[in-house]
Amino acid sequence: MKLSEIADLVSGTLRGDGGIEISGIAPLETAGDGDVSFLANPRYQSQLKTTQAAALLLPEGEWPVEQPVIICKNPYFGFALLMQHFHQIVQKQAAVIHPAAQIADDVQFGANPSIGAFVVIGSGVRLGDNVTVFPGCYIGKNCKTGNDVTLYSHVMLREEVEIGDRVIIHSGSVLGSDGFGFAQEKGVYHKIPQIGRVVIEDDVEIGANCCIDRATLGETRIHRGTKLDNLIQIAHNVKIGEHSVIAGQTGISGSTQVGHHAMFGGQVGIIGHITIGDYVICGAQAGVTKSIPDKGFVSGYPARPHKEHLKIEAAAKKLPEMLRRLHRLEEKIARLEKQNEV
Amino acid sequence: MKLSEIADLVSGTLRGDGGIEISGIAPLETAGDGDVSFLANPRYQSQLKTTQAAALLLPEGEWPVEQPVIICKNPYFGFALLMQHFHQIVQKQAAVIHPAAQIADDVQFGANPSIGAFVVIGSGVRLGDNVTVFPGCYIGKNCKTGNDVTLYSHVMLREEVEIGDRVIIHSGSVLGSDGFGFAQEKGVYHKIPQIGRVVIEDDVEIGANCCIDRATLGETRIHRGTKLDNLIQIAHNVKIGEHSVIAGQTGISGSTQVGHHAMFGGQVGIIGHITIGDYVICGAQAGVTKSIPDKGFVSGYPARPHKEHLKIEAAAKKLPEMLRRLHRLEEKIARLEKQNEV
Amino acid sequence: MKLSEIADLVSGTLRGDGGIEISGIAPLETAGDGDVSFLANPRYQSQLKTTQAAALLLPEGEWPVEQPVIICKNPYFGFALLMQHFHQIVQKQAAVIHPAAQIADDVQFGANPSIGAFVVIGSGVRLGDNVTVFPGCYIGKNCKTGNDVTLYSHVMLREEVEIGDRVIIHSGSVLGSDGFGFAQEKGVYHKIPQIGRVVIEDDVEIGANCCIDRATLGETRIHRGTKLDNLIQIAHNVKIGEHSVIAGQTGISGSTQVGHHAMFGGQVGIIGHITIGDYVICGAQAGVTKSIPDKGFVSGYPARPHKEHLKIEAAAKKLPEMLRRLHRLEEKIARLEKQNEV
Repeated sequence: MKLSEIADLVSGTLRGDGGIEISGIAPLETAGDGDVSFLANPRYQSQLKTTQAAALLLPEGEWPVEQPVIICKNPYFGFALLMQHFHQIVQKQAAVIHPAAQIADDVQFGANPSIGAFVVIGSGVRLGDNVTVFPGCYIGKNCKTGNDVTLYSHVMLREEVEIGDRVIIHSGSVLGSDGFGFAQEKGVYHKIPQIGRVVIEDDVEIGANCCIDRATLGETRIHRGTKLDNLIQIAHNVKIGEHSVIAGQTGISGSTQVGHHAMFGGQVGIIGHITIGDYVICGAQAGVTKSIPDKGFVSGYPARPHKEHLKIEAAAKKLPEMLRRLHRLEEKIARLEKQNEV
Repeated sequence: MKLSEIADLVSGTLRGDGGIEISGIAPLETAGDGDVSFLANPRYQSQLKTTQAAALLLPEGEWPVEQPVIICKNPYFGFALLMQHFHQIVQKQAAVIHPAAQIADDVQFGANPSIGAFVVIGSGVRLGDNVTVFPGCYIGKNCKTGNDVTLYSHVMLREEVEIGDRVIIHSGSVLGSDGFGFAQEKGVYHKIPQIGRVVIEDDVEIGANCCIDRATLGETRIHRGTKLDNLIQIAHNVKIGEHSVIAGQTGISGSTQVGHHAMFGGQVGIIGHITIGDYVICGAQAGVTKSIPDKGFVSGYPARPHKEHLKIEAAAKKLPEMLRRLHRLEEKIARLEKQNEV
Repeated sequence: MKLSEIADLVSGTLRGDGGIEISGIAPLETAGDGDVSFLANPRYQSQLKTTQAAALLLPEGEWPVEQPVIICKNPYFGFALLMQHFHQIVQKQAAVIHPAAQIADDVQFGANPSIGAFVVIGSGVRLGDNVTVFPGCYIGKNCKTGNDVTLYSHVMLREEVEIGDRVIIHSGSVLGSDGFGFAQEKGVYHKIPQIGRVVIEDDVEIGANCCIDRATLGETRIHRGTKLDNLIQIAHNVKIGEHSVIAGQTGISGSTQVGHHAMFGGQVGIIGHITIGDYVICGAQAGVTKSIPDKGFVSGYPARPHKEHLKIEAAAKKLPEMLRRLHRLEEKIARLEKQNEV
């Protein structure tokens, strides 16, 4: 592919020789002959001096580099477009129903089903077109999926889970498991049957070994375009708005509602029954104990507005010194008081 | 079902027309014609004004609502009883041994075994009556279960795990995996074979994608009635007492003993080799670094008695202000000292 | 086995009758006739008085015990050697390829393959000698393993994962799943295909239900001898040096590099794109937000040098008292200022 074609692909502005041939994409550090590279994180800017890349995707600005350059507003998005052009987004397997899959008689397949070995599909399931189910998946009765869905190996969907178009679920994730609901009476916990559903809307991606519990009543829902990393816990009746991103090992407790365009770092914990607004950012490991308005940015434990958190942390660093200063002041005042008595 | 029958079922006191027909259970917000609803969390009290429920389960007190009401001491328990009456506690599948299961010759089944496709059951396994094993489970050699056990899809039991009556284990959980035990010598870690067991007593429920490691020697044991949420890590030789509840993503390190009726929030971490008493509460994300006496309530990192934690947090909020006040005092004292010198 | 032979096995010095027969190994608390026990954790020293063990492995020193004793520099290592002598390090199953496994035509096996039921092995896979794959594992196309590898049930390897000799992976772990990489453009997240690899070097052990993501480009690599506990998240392009140990539920974000001989407690979180030096220790639940030099020891959130963390925590405990003292000083100074005015 010529560099000029790449510039078109990423809607960027070419500076330099657009005729050179590009054969691959690589990070700055390892790029070589024929590779196009990119700068998305300023942390790696110093690598621009040493990279052997044949061409570079760079944000707007003047760049003292020798290679031809494609300037784009969002080089990381350019990189995504290039990667999507050169590589497939999901893995594929043979578009057949493997004879060693166990499929209930009344399952409805769309066009081109690809069902791997040792998959179990229960009664009443309806799959859309071009659905790929890797080996070992379990799809409980009455589940539904849209088109172009990919379930990697060993995804487990309990009964009546509903999945939209282009959803990707990675290996080992469990959707529709019972929510954690018990009523205590005289020191004994009594299980509350969890009979609600899980709904995963279009274009959602769910990482590996996640757990998304079915609702007690009603539904647990992840709205379209939202992306979950690995080992995430989504409790019963949680709602997560559109186009949110949630990093690994985060947990959201029961009935909490998260708005759209949320960004949660890793290992965030959010208590139940609260409301997180739109465009909210939670720093990694934040422990969120109360509702957050739109566009809030919180961090720390308990989670506080990020600026307040930073101020407290900066002051906390001085705590041992503050103790000493306080003690010195007390001594001085005692002396002053004595002098004044005299 | 008539409302009066429901009042009997939950041992509540009927106020109003017991003759109305109840056909379902729903949360206050979505309840409609024929639904009974309930108030368990005061947070939702305002919904009493707008709910379309036909009848309500309410705690003792005067309630300005128009619907017939069932007063019960513990409406959440009433709700549990109703849900158990109308719905099944666990999912069922055909009470057969699926021909595509791999079962060792000497496995002993109780009455009504229900074994799904692609299940593997190893030599020496003994299952009780009415055991349901969903597709893809792995039951290693010499495991034993009691009666009325449900293993959802892809539960993995390594060898010699012992499980009591009415235990429910959700999809993807691993019991009996090796404890994390290595001896370091000259910078290299040497594995300590983990040859102990895992014992899960009666009425325990274990969420999805949990890990409960086998003991190095002896046993890891979860006592009866205890409920674990998803993605929980229970290390080797841990003991958890009866009727405890542990929320998602909590981790308990090796050889720690937890008493009965413990309540742990989500993402709690507990170090190894300590003792947590009976009726102990750990707030979400608490980092427990030392033993806790009976009825202790801790939170924070490091975990402290909850009241102390709250006071420290309240004071921490004032830290930046304290720094300024301290600085101002130092200036004033310097001035006073100067005046006194004069 | 005679005690004198055990002394040889652990390279220890015998004190007392080496002729007694040892038939087992047990903890101090439960050891009985014929058992050798050991003291590795000083926390259990008081049990030396009451233990019924027939002989003891003890560190250097004088020990007022009646039993014969083997003195060794590192009794825990001695214990490991004994356990390895008496017990197998990994479980075994029949050294056959189970007829209910699905294996691509071109898979290359080494000597003595042991492949369980319902295992899927994709095209282009090459396994070394003495590889044991328990039931339900999924090995994607073009994966490679060295010799003497053990994959417990339901391990999932996506395509092109490379595994060294003597690697042990516990049940439910996912290697080679897509890294969490999306480019946001106009409020929508666009997936960046993750086409790099995962490489696990010799003697690595990985716990249950872990997730080790494939690199975006290049590789995610765990160097030899490193041990991971359960439920750990290793993001794309992370590198972990040799002989490190990482406790359960820890998460390491994308592109971070960890040196050799790291020791991380449980539930540690480490942000992306930083460098953790060699011999670094992170206390449990530490939230690491910046690079750490060699031999650093950090804890807390945000993670700070451990001694500094302890000082701050000690001072934080006094915060409510400091507030009171500050208030009292302000009052006194106001009085003094008034006196001086007069």
